[in-house]
Amino acid sequence: MSRIYNFSAGPSMLPLEVLEQCAAEMTDYKGSGMSVMEMSHRSPVYDAIIKETEADFRKLMNIPDNYKVLFLQGGASTQFAAVPLNLMKTGKADYVVSGQFSKKAFKEAQKYGDAKCIASSEDRTFAYIPEITPDMVREDADYVHVCYNNTIFGTKYPEVPNVGDKVLVADMSSCITSEPVDVTKFGCIYAGAQKNMAPAGLTVVIIREDLLGTEKEFTPVMLNYKEMAENDSMYNTPPCYAIYVAGLVYKWALKNGGLEAMKKRNEEKAAILYDYIDSSKLFKATADKKCRSMMNVCFVTGDADLDKKFCKEAEAAGLSNLKGHRSVGGMRASIYNAMPKEGVEALVAFMKKFEAENA
Amino acid sequence: MSRIYNFSAGPSMLPLEVLEQCAAEMTDYKGSGMSVMEMSHRSPVYDAIIKETEADFRKLMNIPDNYKVLFLQGGASTQFAAVPLNLMKTGKADYVVSGQFSKKAFKEAQKYGDAKCIASSEDRTFAYIPEITPDMVREDADYVHVCYNNTIFGTKYPEVPNVGDKVLVADMSSCITSEPVDVTKFGCIYAGAQKNMAPAGLTVVIIREDLLGTEKEFTPVMLNYKEMAENDSMYNTPPCYAIYVAGLVYKWALKNGGLEAMKKRNEEKAAILYDYIDSSKLFKATADKKCRSMMNVCFVTGDADLDKKFCKEAEAAGLSNLKGHRSVGGMRASIYNAMPKEGVEALVAFMKKFEAENA
Repeated sequence: MSRIYNFSAGPSMLPLEVLEQCAAEMTDYKGSGMSVMEMSHRSPVYDAIIKETEADFRKLMNIPDNYKVLFLQGGASTQFAAVPLNLMKTGKADYVVSGQFSKKAFKEAQKYGDAKCIASSEDRTFAYIPEITPDMVREDADYVHVCYNNTIFGTKYPEVPNVGDKVLVADMSSCITSEPVDVTKFGCIYAGAQKNMAPAGLTVVIIREDLLGTEKEFTPVMLNYKEMAENDSMYNTPPCYAIYVAGLVYKWALKNGGLEAMKKRNEEKAAILYDYIDSSKLFKATADKKCRSMMNVCFVTGDADLDKKFCKEAEAAGLSNLKGHRSVGGMRASIYNAMPKEGVEALVAFMKKFEAENA
Repeated sequence: MSRIYNFSAGPSMLPLEVLEQCAAEMTDYKGSGMSVMEMSHRSPVYDAIIKETEADFRKLMNIPDNYKVLFLQGGASTQFAAVPLNLMKTGKADYVVSGQFSKKAFKEAQKYGDAKCIASSEDRTFAYIPEITPDMVREDADYVHVCYNNTIFGTKYPEVPNVGDKVLVADMSSCITSEPVDVTKFGCIYAGAQKNMAPAGLTVVIIREDLLGTEKEFTPVMLNYKEMAENDSMYNTPPCYAIYVAGLVYKWALKNGGLEAMKKRNEEKAAILYDYIDSSKLFKATADKKCRSMMNVCFVTGDADLDKKFCKEAEAAGLSNLKGHRSVGGMRASIYNAMPKEGVEALVAFMKKFEAENA
């Protein structure tokens, strides 16, 4: 077996030991005589799995007791509707547009009420995070929505935006569990699991309990946070296997020092890459320095043909999925928790060689 | 390893050879150096997987070209909202209530328009399928909705209901791919995959193309059939791994003779069980004979304590998850495609022994 370094923006690398455990337990989970894929979600053996997964996630993220954790389906794009359907109780919400996904979230919210874009960084192709101050937020807005890390453009909020006493809602799909986050500063955090936590098909929602119960009448039951919370994410069959894998990934993260340690590792990895890019005469980072993402490192040569050559040769060298998103081109190295430091070092070594050959 | 016979109503048994292939390919899918869980859904290697899965599903179900196949998330319960949101174009729809899930579908539809229950079997705890004739359907109804196999009550439509020229919509979660179905008689078929096709977290929708494009304005984008069809189920990241497993299951079914052969196997299995129950003095089947499900065989002793004893002793004998749904009690043996005939024979042998011991 020869594993490659996979820089995909998502779905993306999982820890090898997690995959090995999945394989080992595939036909018989801990003597149950069944695969986790085959278990009734209401059986005691599965109940223990989902409960332990939630407990580990709470421990990892330091989630206070007055927040519910929901294991849902449909990806962040489903949450783009669920958030306004549940939280736009008086009909107004403010959105910060810092990339393609926050733009989609903003567009979706307009179906359900008066959604306003209070700040955008589209003027410079989302190369930065707009500054947010409490006075920008409408007094009667129900919440402020942000996308905390922008996967396509490689930017991240340098700190939690100050929205005064407003409810802050954050899409953290591409940075969740990459570093500690003060959950109490948010009313709702949601994330597709397929970047840092699990295979695609699981969406995690963390929501403050007092925000439950204000959904619109025509909210589909499966998008109703209160209903999902009251049923412990089991109104119907949850994505059982993805939850099991998430549980293994949480255990891996806890065993490896939790989110403080993840942050340290991720900072080191990002520094190796950004430091080289900043010193390079061929490559240039596209995001403003103070808003750079630790998870998605975007860069270009400035020559589309050379970018293409780079991605092709990198692929052949076992450095996979480095092509930037089709909307921006260039290159993107997604270096989530499961990407080892060795992968980033191998990438930089390859970049140096490529630079020398293409000077 | 000792595999048990798992009679769970869903998630449920998968073919052992499929699980073994999942395990073998877990850390390196066909020399890609990646798990299927780690692949970008837009990569060539994954594109081949989803395309082949769809092609095999179309072949297996004999789906005509004027029907789209969608690989979605959220389970049938999400479709309970999606169906009226997309298909209730003039605002009226007729529902047949033949069990708990069709009741939930009917309730959900009432959020979006004038949904009418045109027939119900609730008077006898859903022990039968109500008869449907075209004159029962409202002239201006947009569609008629049925649940084709009722998992909890063990009933199935003996034939496709005659709704005249109306669009027929069917929830086939617990019988899809168990036997051939004439897709052309339906406008829309949907199914959660976790019973006969894949792990939980995948929902398959088969929809006639001319029915696309009449969704309500406030339909969440992820519940919009047209949007999903135009994006080949990749508006966002689909449940990639569950789709891969479904693909392996479809290949297994095709290799084993397709749906005609599945039907034969399933009829045989069901006959072994029903024939014994009908001859038994202890056990009694709960569904009316002409509406009996081939997939979910429900039976009772008539004594709740004895039912409990039966389930407990069966569990200890490696015959798992035979307890009936909490809403009806008794026993239920779910014998989907992946349950081998040997499993049913082992169950009947155990039932005979139990009957002798508890005469």
